[in-house]
Amino acid sequence: MQATSQTLQNLGVVRPTLVLDEERLQQNIDRMVKRAQQNDVVFRPHFKTHQSAAIGEYFRTAGATKITVSSWHMATYFADHGWTDITVAIPVNLLQMATINELAERITLNLAVDSVAAVDALKEQVRHPVNIWIEADIGYHRSGVWYENVDDYVNLADMIADSDKLTLKGMLTHAGHSYKAYTKEQIAAVHEESVGRLAQLRTQLLVQGHQVMISIGDTPTCSVLDDLSAVDEMRPGNFVFYDLTMVDIGVCEPADIAVAVACPVIGTYPHRQQVIVHGGGVHFSKDVLSDGDRSLYGRVIRVRNGAFAEVVEGIELIGLSQEHGTLQLSDPALLDELVIGDLLLIVPVHSCMTADLYSSYLDLQGRRYPRIPRQP
Amino acid sequence: MQATSQTLQNLGVVRPTLVLDEERLQQNIDRMVKRAQQNDVVFRPHFKTHQSAAIGEYFRTAGATKITVSSWHMATYFADHGWTDITVAIPVNLLQMATINELAERITLNLAVDSVAAVDALKEQVRHPVNIWIEADIGYHRSGVWYENVDDYVNLADMIADSDKLTLKGMLTHAGHSYKAYTKEQIAAVHEESVGRLAQLRTQLLVQGHQVMISIGDTPTCSVLDDLSAVDEMRPGNFVFYDLTMVDIGVCEPADIAVAVACPVIGTYPHRQQVIVHGGGVHFSKDVLSDGDRSLYGRVIRVRNGAFAEVVEGIELIGLSQEHGTLQLSDPALLDELVIGDLLLIVPVHSCMTADLYSSYLDLQGRRYPRIPRQP
Repeated sequence: MQATSQTLQNLGVVRPTLVLDEERLQQNIDRMVKRAQQNDVVFRPHFKTHQSAAIGEYFRTAGATKITVSSWHMATYFADHGWTDITVAIPVNLLQMATINELAERITLNLAVDSVAAVDALKEQVRHPVNIWIEADIGYHRSGVWYENVDDYVNLADMIADSDKLTLKGMLTHAGHSYKAYTKEQIAAVHEESVGRLAQLRTQLLVQGHQVMISIGDTPTCSVLDDLSAVDEMRPGNFVFYDLTMVDIGVCEPADIAVAVACPVIGTYPHRQQVIVHGGGVHFSKDVLSDGDRSLYGRVIRVRNGAFAEVVEGIELIGLSQEHGTLQLSDPALLDELVIGDLLLIVPVHSCMTADLYSSYLDLQGRRYPRIPRQP
Repeated sequence: MQATSQTLQNLGVVRPTLVLDEERLQQNIDRMVKRAQQNDVVFRPHFKTHQSAAIGEYFRTAGATKITVSSWHMATYFADHGWTDITVAIPVNLLQMATINELAERITLNLAVDSVAAVDALKEQVRHPVNIWIEADIGYHRSGVWYENVDDYVNLADMIADSDKLTLKGMLTHAGHSYKAYTKEQIAAVHEESVGRLAQLRTQLLVQGHQVMISIGDTPTCSVLDDLSAVDEMRPGNFVFYDLTMVDIGVCEPADIAVAVACPVIGTYPHRQQVIVHGGGVHFSKDVLSDGDRSLYGRVIRVRNGAFAEVVEGIELIGLSQEHGTLQLSDPALLDELVIGDLLLIVPVHSCMTADLYSSYLDLQGRRYPRIPRQP
């Protein structure tokens, strides 16, 4: 792994650093754009994964004009960077009405609602036209109106239709339970169940005079299913980087993972076949892949010809404290390759959570991609 | 919980916000300072938990003059804020030699080492005097020289003594396995074993002509044991805020927890007795207290008279996605108290990891305490 370390050192890396493979990023975006086009589905990528105006430009170049975010801070940031059609895909936070009105005045703003209370408040307080999406809970049990409560959907649709500022656009859902599907068949089953339920709701809303679109949002479904024609819009986010969780459930290959953390080796412990890096929970997040007694927080990859290369077998990131990461070697021969003062490159379990811990990305050509500034 | 929500709204809180109880902070610091004094032990608090120059001033007022950090970024930040005796309690990162030299020139810098490679590099590259601590692994199996390898200790001590820039100060350890002790007796057992091993090493180093101090660092030991006279220095960090993990292992009371996250209620789901807040993994971290099938990420507290008050029974934060938090109510009567647009205050499982996600603290009197800026 000397070549990997040398490449990173040549870029000036001396501490835990979020590294991006620009070519993989581009491929991931292009592949998803093509899937949306083939299915004639509106592509509204979720920018919560990268949270970077610079990376957003790759999407713009690929033809994206509509985006999704999950906080008002992100909505404002991307509006300030020229995005004019934004969905905030989390039930509306009524405390941020000032921001809602500020944005509604200058962009096409799409809000998610799942309650009478939220629609009531919006009807009363919104001063500019906004689009409304009813969030549907089709089995994930997070936010959204439970899909069996048809009367609630009709009631919300009637309330929205009754307002001159609110326009009902459709139903929005996140089939988060697809992350627990472990084969293409299981993902297909979740998707078929989801769109079946949404299609039924759409019909019932149509009977009541409400025409609505269907928008789905999970990376597994959008990545592996060939036929997405039953939906009108897709909002995947994680696919831009993918990660070990997506590899684990068969949604991508290790060669698709586009971000990794460069970590300095600060200790080697041959007697227990372990290596300690500076790279802990504050550099990876504590998301973990657990399998019985085994915990996986990351895997080591090599760099070759200025690009991410293969996963190194026989070494795994098995523990994280705040600043330390513990690598376990099942292949003791690797110890010869691991020297204090070297840099290792480690792909994460959950790229959205890992990337959130940094203020920028560094690619292997030395370019910086700033992320959204933290709020005060 | 209306009063709590109103207090937070009066402070201008509209989104997930890290809130500090200044009085509890002060009490936690005072209590630990007193424990150090009673035991005649040097107090070198670990600032990785708060990472705030403003909170550092509370320690200075309480008499602290020496501090601990766990990254070179923190070391530079606190040196810039007037701290002149800093221990970087993580095996030295040889890639940051420029920073080491820059700091060694202007402050008393204490480095941790656990390898010949690190001492060799320091002897060659350090240009100003630095103090060296040999990190000891006395059972936690993270970094440090394994305590049974006495020859390694003597060898490192000899190497350090042979340098005109390096001064051997002592042995530094973190008994991280005390976090898995569940009673004062178990914590005492870990501590006795640790100091027993360190005392033996000290004797063996003394025989070889090396006089060393003993420095320990874990919050459980420093919080609950009455007799710490066997050590020379203590470096606890978490105690400044404590958290639900420390409550869980009996190290503090819920009334000692000094930080919490204010979260807007964005959805209520009476049919499954759940409430969704804006407050997810990017606001709490994913650290979790697990007990069989049950996962705990936070507990709701009330505010009364401008201060944190009691934990609300019958409601727990049981799930986190990136931006959403799921609260489960075992007491359905609480649903009447939970209204969309209200703010809840939730104490975290691991305060160090939670605080790391914010750029400042807000106290209940409306004062802001900035944290260390993120690196580019």
